[in-house]
Amino acid sequence: MSIRRRKISIIGSGFTGATTALMLAQKELGDVVLVDIPQAEGPTKGKALDMLESTPVQGVDAQITGTVDYEDTKDSDLVIITAGVARKPGMSRDDLVSTNAKVMRSVTEQVVKYSPECTILVLTNPVDAMTYEVYRTSGFPKNRVIGQSGVLDTARFRTFIAQELNISVEDVTGFVLGGHGDDMVPLVRYSYAGGIPLEKWLSKDRLDAIVERTRKGGGEIVSLLGNGSAYYAPAASLVQMAEAILKDKRRILPAIAYLEGEYGYNDIYLGVPVILGANGLEQIIELDLTDEEKKQLDKSADSVRSVMKLLS
Amino acid sequence: MSIRRRKISIIGSGFTGATTALMLAQKELGDVVLVDIPQAEGPTKGKALDMLESTPVQGVDAQITGTVDYEDTKDSDLVIITAGVARKPGMSRDDLVSTNAKVMRSVTEQVVKYSPECTILVLTNPVDAMTYEVYRTSGFPKNRVIGQSGVLDTARFRTFIAQELNISVEDVTGFVLGGHGDDMVPLVRYSYAGGIPLEKWLSKDRLDAIVERTRKGGGEIVSLLGNGSAYYAPAASLVQMAEAILKDKRRILPAIAYLEGEYGYNDIYLGVPVILGANGLEQIIELDLTDEEKKQLDKSADSVRSVMKLLS
Amino acid sequence: MSIRRRKISIIGSGFTGATTALMLAQKELGDVVLVDIPQAEGPTKGKALDMLESTPVQGVDAQITGTVDYEDTKDSDLVIITAGVARKPGMSRDDLVSTNAKVMRSVTEQVVKYSPECTILVLTNPVDAMTYEVYRTSGFPKNRVIGQSGVLDTARFRTFIAQELNISVEDVTGFVLGGHGDDMVPLVRYSYAGGIPLEKWLSKDRLDAIVERTRKGGGEIVSLLGNGSAYYAPAASLVQMAEAILKDKRRILPAIAYLEGEYGYNDIYLGVPVILGANGLEQIIELDLTDEEKKQLDKSADSVRSVMKLLS
Amino acid sequence: MSIRRRKISIIGSGFTGATTALMLAQKELGDVVLVDIPQAEGPTKGKALDMLESTPVQGVDAQITGTVDYEDTKDSDLVIITAGVARKPGMSRDDLVSTNAKVMRSVTEQVVKYSPECTILVLTNPVDAMTYEVYRTSGFPKNRVIGQSGVLDTARFRTFIAQELNISVEDVTGFVLGGHGDDMVPLVRYSYAGGIPLEKWLSKDRLDAIVERTRKGGGEIVSLLGNGSAYYAPAASLVQMAEAILKDKRRILPAIAYLEGEYGYNDIYLGVPVILGANGLEQIIELDLTDEEKKQLDKSADSVRSVMKLLS
Repeated sequence: MSIRRRKISIIGSGFTGATTALMLAQKELGDVVLVDIPQAEGPTKGKALDMLESTPVQGVDAQITGTVDYEDTKDSDLVIITAGVARKPGMSRDDLVSTNAKVMRSVTEQVVKYSPECTILVLTNPVDAMTYEVYRTSGFPKNRVIGQSGVLDTARFRTFIAQELNISVEDVTGFVLGGHGDDMVPLVRYSYAGGIPLEKWLSKDRLDAIVERTRKGGGEIVSLLGNGSAYYAPAASLVQMAEAILKDKRRILPAIAYLEGEYGYNDIYLGVPVILGANGLEQIIELDLTDEEKKQLDKSADSVRSVMKLLS
Repeated sequence: MSIRRRKISIIGSGFTGATTALMLAQKELGDVVLVDIPQAEGPTKGKALDMLESTPVQGVDAQITGTVDYEDTKDSDLVIITAGVARKPGMSRDDLVSTNAKVMRSVTEQVVKYSPECTILVLTNPVDAMTYEVYRTSGFPKNRVIGQSGVLDTARFRTFIAQELNISVEDVTGFVLGGHGDDMVPLVRYSYAGGIPLEKWLSKDRLDAIVERTRKGGGEIVSLLGNGSAYYAPAASLVQMAEAILKDKRRILPAIAYLEGEYGYNDIYLGVPVILGANGLEQIIELDLTDEEKKQLDKSADSVRSVMKLLS
Repeated sequence: MSIRRRKISIIGSGFTGATTALMLAQKELGDVVLVDIPQAEGPTKGKALDMLESTPVQGVDAQITGTVDYEDTKDSDLVIITAGVARKPGMSRDDLVSTNAKVMRSVTEQVVKYSPECTILVLTNPVDAMTYEVYRTSGFPKNRVIGQSGVLDTARFRTFIAQELNISVEDVTGFVLGGHGDDMVPLVRYSYAGGIPLEKWLSKDRLDAIVERTRKGGGEIVSLLGNGSAYYAPAASLVQMAEAILKDKRRILPAIAYLEGEYGYNDIYLGVPVILGANGLEQIIELDLTDEEKKQLDKSADSVRSVMKLLS
Repeated sequence: MSIRRRKISIIGSGFTGATTALMLAQKELGDVVLVDIPQAEGPTKGKALDMLESTPVQGVDAQITGTVDYEDTKDSDLVIITAGVARKPGMSRDDLVSTNAKVMRSVTEQVVKYSPECTILVLTNPVDAMTYEVYRTSGFPKNRVIGQSGVLDTARFRTFIAQELNISVEDVTGFVLGGHGDDMVPLVRYSYAGGIPLEKWLSKDRLDAIVERTRKGGGEIVSLLGNGSAYYAPAASLVQMAEAILKDKRRILPAIAYLEGEYGYNDIYLGVPVILGANGLEQIIELDLTDEEKKQLDKSADSVRSVMKLLS
C-alpha cells in the first residue's frame, strides 16, 4: 500500500522550530520530529509532548516527537533547518558565519544519512550562505535544498500595506528579490492591492517608508522583544513553503535558490521567484529587470558572496 | 448594521497568552488584544506584531494588538485571564495565592471597567480560587465568569489513551470532575474509545497508570522544560472554550463553575460538566456519583476551600 | 449579551441555493435558512435536513432550515437571492426579464419585511438588472444591495490560466469590469500569475482565447450539463462575498454595485471593484481606464440599460 | 521523490458522487476523477469543470476531472463506488439487486484493472450485498474493500439527539451495528451526549422514537425530496472514511466489513466497528453483545444473506 503519513523533521527546537512544528501539525501535513542537541533534550521533549497533548482539542491527528537522536528522523520527506546561534552583542559577523556554518555541516550530515531522499528547507541566518553550505554538504541536487526569506519579507510588506489601506491582507501581494532584510530588492511594480498596482494606492513617499520598514522588519521585532527575534511569521512562512511541497501545489513563491546562470549569476544562492512542488524547487522564474533593479540585485549578490567567502 | 468583528482580550502575554492569541487569530474568531504590565510593553507589542505579520501567509484576517493600556480592551466580547506568577522554588503556597489574587483583583477591575458586558475565562493558578476571586471582584453574574481546567486534563488523558491504543485522538473522550491536576476526579466510566468504555480496552492497572500520569501531566511538562510550564495544550483548551462561547455552539465541556447547590456544594468554584454558549456558562450538568466518586469530589472541594481561605 | 449566531437566508433552494447553504454551514458562518415557494416545500426541507444530518460528520455547528414561510427569515444578517427562472428554449429575453423581475419584487418585499437591517446579495440573472430591481424595491441604501458576477468570472479565468501554466490557482489573479459573461470587460493588464503580469507568461493569442473561454464560461457548463447551469462555482463565489461581509474582512472583490457618477455612469448597477465589509459595500474603487477599456465598459453599460428598460 | 498527490476516483457522478468529489477537493485530500457511463459524459464533465472552477475561490488546489474512460482512474489510491440504480416504483427487490450487482461487477473489473493497489469504498445499495459483490469480483484482500452505512446512520442519530437536547453535534456520539436503515442495530448504551449515556438525558420513549426516526432516516429524505434520495450526509460520510484512510488516522468508525468468525459470522459483509487507516480496514473491533442485541444482529445478518442469495 502506498499510503503513509508524511514525515517532517525540524532541526532546532527554539521558538521558530517549535512554532513551525505546531503549525505543521495543525494542518495535518504529517508527523513531526523536533530535533535538538543533547543539552536541550528536556525542553525539546517537553515542547513536543505539550503540543501533542493539544491535538485532541485541536481535532488533528499528528505524532509530534521531541528527540536528540537523528535516527528518529529516518525517512523524512521534508527537513526544515532552524538550528544555529543568533548574533549576540560583541559577536563579529565572521564568528556568526563560521559558527553557524559548522552547525549546518554537522546537521546536514546527519539529515542526509537518515533521509537521503528528503527536501531541505533552511531558515538559519545568514540564510543565503547557510543554504549554500547545506547544499554543498548534502550533495543533494539543487532542487532539494531551498532557503526561506522572501515569503517572510513579503508577509511583512503585505501586513503594512493592508494596515495602511485598511483592507484584507488576503488582497495584498508583494514581490521581492535578493537577500533577506537589508539586502532585499522589493519590486514594488509587481506588488498590488486587489490587483491594482500599489503606486495607484499610495504616494511614493509612503511606499518608500513601508519598503524601508519591511527591510528593517526583523530588527523591529528584535528591538521590541528585547531578547530574541521573530518566530511567528518566520514559522508561518516555512509552513507555507512546506505545504506547497508536500501537497505538490506548484505555488509561485519567493525562495532562496541555487542559480546557474539565471539572472546572470552562477554558483550562488539568492532570492528569486520559484515554483514549489513535489520535487522541491520545480522551476526558477526569470524576470526582465530594470537597470536600477539589476543594480540593486547585484549589490545583494555581492553581499551574499562576501558572506560566502567566510565559509571555509 | 449589527455585524462587527468579535473582540477578545487576553490578559498576560506570556507563552500561554501569546499562543492563545495565535490560535484565536488562526480561527478568525475576532480581533485580539494582548495586554500586559508596563514593564512588558516591548515583548507584548513584539509578539503581537510578529503574529500580525504571519496573517497574510496564514490567510486570515485578524487585528492583533499588543498593549499595556486597558482602554484598548474596550468592549471586548470575551476576556481571557492568563496573568499571574508561577510558583517559584522557595515560594510558599500562601504567597503564591495572595500574589495572584492581588493580580486577579487589579486585572478584573480594569477588565470590568472597559468591558462590562464581557464573559471572562480564567486560567491563572490555583485556578479554582482565582476564578472565584475574579467572580467576586467583577460583580458579574456567575454565567460570565468561568475557569479552565478540565478541557486540559482530558486533553492529556485522551492523548495518553490514543497513544496506548494506537488510534485517532478524535475517537477518545475523557471525563473529569473537581480541581486541576492532583485534585482531579477522573470518571473513567464516562471515558471511551470509539464509544466503547475504556475498561473494555485496557486493564485496570494500565488505566490507573494513565490516570496517574494525567494527574501529574502539568508537572511532567514542567520537569521536561526545566524552566517554565506547559502552554500549547492550555492555550488550545482556552480556545476551545472561547470558540464554544463566541460561536454559541452549546458544547458540553468540563469547566470551573460557580456552584449554588449543584453536587451538594455552595459558594465555591469547582470543575463540573457544563454547556458553553453565547451566554457563557449556559447550564451545569449534574450527574449521579458513586460514593467513591463523591468522596473524591469532596476531597477536591475541601482542597479548593483551603485555598479560598487564603483569599483576603 | 451581544453574542449571537449570524443568520443567513437564501432565497431559492435550487442547486445554487442549496450548494451555497452547504458552503456557508461548512464555514460556520451562521445559521442558514433555505426558502422557496410553497410548491417546492418538500425538496427544500429535504435538502436542508440532509445537509443538517451531515453536520456531525463535517464537525460543524449550524442550524439549516428549509421553509416556505418568510417569517423564518426574521432578523437575517444577510440574505442571498438565487430565486428565479432560467431561460428556456423558446423564451424571449423580454419574458425572462419580466418574469424574474416579478420574482425579485415579491421576494424582496418579504425579505425587507422580516429583515429590514440585512444586506442583500443577488445572483439571479440577468444579474445587473435584477440587482437594480431588488435595490429599487427594497428602499435599502445602496451599500446593502449588491450583485454577484465578477467573482465567478474571475474564478473561471483563474482556473483556465492555472491549468495552462500548471501552477496553483492560489497564485493567479484576474480582474474584470462590467456585466456578466458576454459583456465582461477583462482587464488583463491587472491580472497576474505570481504577481507577474499575464502578458509575460502567455502569448496574446492564448490570452485572448482564455478570455473568450471565460466569457462563454457559463455557456460551456450549460452545454455540458445539457439540462441546467453551473452551481458549484457560483455558490462558492456568493460564499466568498458573504464571508467578507459577515467577518468584516474588507476584501477587494469585483461586485455589481450601484453607481452614482463613478466611472462616469449614473443610476445603474454595474460590475466594478469594491471593498466588502460589515456595511456591505464599503467603497467603490475607481480606476483610470484606457480608451479601449472605457469603450468596452460603455458597451457593457448600454447592454445593462437595454435590459433595465424592460423593467416596468 | 516519494511525494505525490493522492488520487481518488469516484464511480458514479450523480448527486452523491459529485458532492463527494466536492468535499474531497475542499479538504485537498487529492486529485479527484469523477467517472460515469458514456451516456452521462456531458453532465459528468460539466460538474467536474464547474467544481474545478470553484477551487480558486475556495482556496484549494485539486484537479477534478470528469471522464467516461477508466484509464483516467489509473493508479488511484482510493476508489469510491456510488454507481447503480435506485429502486423505482414497480421494480422488485430482486431486479434491483441483480441490476446493481451487474453494475458492481463491470465497474470493479475496470477499477481493478487500472488501480490494482487501491482501497475501495462502496455506497451502492443494498450496500452489504454490493460490497460483497465488489469484494468477490475484485479479488482484493478483505481490508481493501469496505462499505459505508454506519457513519451515515449515526450522523442522523447524532443530529436528532443534538436537536432534541439543544447542544452541539460535536458532543453527541452514536453507535450502530448491522445493516443499513431498517436493519440497523443501534447500541444506545454506547451512545452519549458529552460522554454521558443517553439514557440519563432522555426517556426511553423519546430515545425509541429517535432510534425509529434514524432507521427511517433515508426514507424521510426520499419522501421530502419527492424525486431522489439523500446525498449531502452520505457524501460527508464517505469523505470521513476516505480521510481516515488517506491520512492514516486510525479512526474508529462503523463500517461494512468482511467477517471471518467475528461476532460469530462467516463469509458475510456486515456493519461493525472498525479501525480505518492506511491499509483500509486495519482491525475489526469485537464487542460483547447482550442476548437481545445478538438476536437483532442475527436478524440483520439473515436479511443480508437473503439479499446475497440473489447474487448470481
